[in-house]
Amino acid sequence: MTRHFVEEIEALKSNLIKMSGLAEEAIAGAIRALLDRRRELAERVIAEDIRINAMEVQIDETVVDLLALQQPVASDLRFILAALKINNDLERIGDHAVNIAESALASVDRGVEPAPVVELPRMAHITKEMLRNAIDGFIHADAGLCQQVLKSDDIIDDLNKGNVAALVMLMRQDPASLEQALDAMRVSRNLERVADLATNIAEDVIFAAEARVVKHLYGPSPSPRQ
Amino acid sequence: MTRHFVEEIEALKSNLIKMSGLAEEAIAGAIRALLDRRRELAERVIAEDIRINAMEVQIDETVVDLLALQQPVASDLRFILAALKINNDLERIGDHAVNIAESALASVDRGVEPAPVVELPRMAHITKEMLRNAIDGFIHADAGLCQQVLKSDDIIDDLNKGNVAALVMLMRQDPASLEQALDAMRVSRNLERVADLATNIAEDVIFAAEARVVKHLYGPSPSPRQ
Repeated sequence: MTRHFVEEIEALKSNLIKMSGLAEEAIAGAIRALLDRRRELAERVIAEDIRINAMEVQIDETVVDLLALQQPVASDLRFILAALKINNDLERIGDHAVNIAESALASVDRGVEPAPVVELPRMAHITKEMLRNAIDGFIHADAGLCQQVLKSDDIIDDLNKGNVAALVMLMRQDPASLEQALDAMRVSRNLERVADLATNIAEDVIFAAEARVVKHLYGPSPSPRQ
Repeated sequence: MTRHFVEEIEALKSNLIKMSGLAEEAIAGAIRALLDRRRELAERVIAEDIRINAMEVQIDETVVDLLALQQPVASDLRFILAALKINNDLERIGDHAVNIAESALASVDRGVEPAPVVELPRMAHITKEMLRNAIDGFIHADAGLCQQVLKSDDIIDDLNKGNVAALVMLMRQDPASLEQALDAMRVSRNLERVADLATNIAEDVIFAAEARVVKHLYGPSPSPRQ
């Protein structure tokens, strides 16, 4: 392993940490914009997605260069391929933050309180922890942290199902709240998708760390439940 | 380029064509199950997702082996990395077929006609064409076919928006149809996501063919609009 290779791997890690930080901030900003009804914050989240997109392109190019110039094998190769997948998942998380920010804007425009998403702050908190553990697990090759992520995904799925049931009941009882309830469902579903993507990342880390495929072994796959 | 390498690339292509065929069949089956209210067909689509998942794992392993053993560079490397991403996107398309099949089951269980998804057969047809063009574009390195996919995505976005608006109106006018309308929204949204994934594939093909990044250049990215 050349010194140059080690440096490039470190740069790749640090860029993924930076990108993960941007994705995390975007989700937190979108949730805050929704809860505090802050139009300018929602708009900022939407505008800043361009930074996440730009980082995805940059990291993809780094990966291509690393593979072409260094021709890594074995665990180095798996690490770099996992980085490529994680990069793609982080970009998608940014897209879900934009979706939540758009729901926040719609809610502000409508001029009425959004329908309650049951335990939204708890859902957001667990999702953030999942993303952080998945990325820490990647950086430190800690498969244990990633196993934790797989478990948390079940909690988020249950919270989302509970939200959908509660919001359907609300729509029945109060048809005037239809659009707010649809927005709230959208927010819950987008957070659930972020948790799925954190789970994808955790699976890819376990794959890279242990060279075995976890995907599709832990019961139902983290499919986009929409 | 060794003869072995050429053979492995051909095997990779043929596996991706096969996987794409499975994904296409799954979507078509789920839509047919929904329209014809066929429980057994919906259940088959859900059960057969395991084949798509298994192919994803197998193709991933082929890619790792190809990179490790052949150490390709330049356009071969980009082709193989595009195959890795396309593989992931096809698996996600399978997940969306499962979601549509689940909506079909819910509709059969409810024992009432599903709410109408405006132009559902047309949406399904365009989406199938998009997927087919994206994969053909990949196999034949035909960026022109892929440009066509990017254009079709706008049509699907508009059809989905039209569906959501019509279904919100239906819910308002006839609150008893609430759950059928939510199912119909879910179907429309899942088809729209399949179109997004076909668009992702097309972008990756253009990237592989022309070594330039199309992603995030063609207006709004095909973000998961949920």
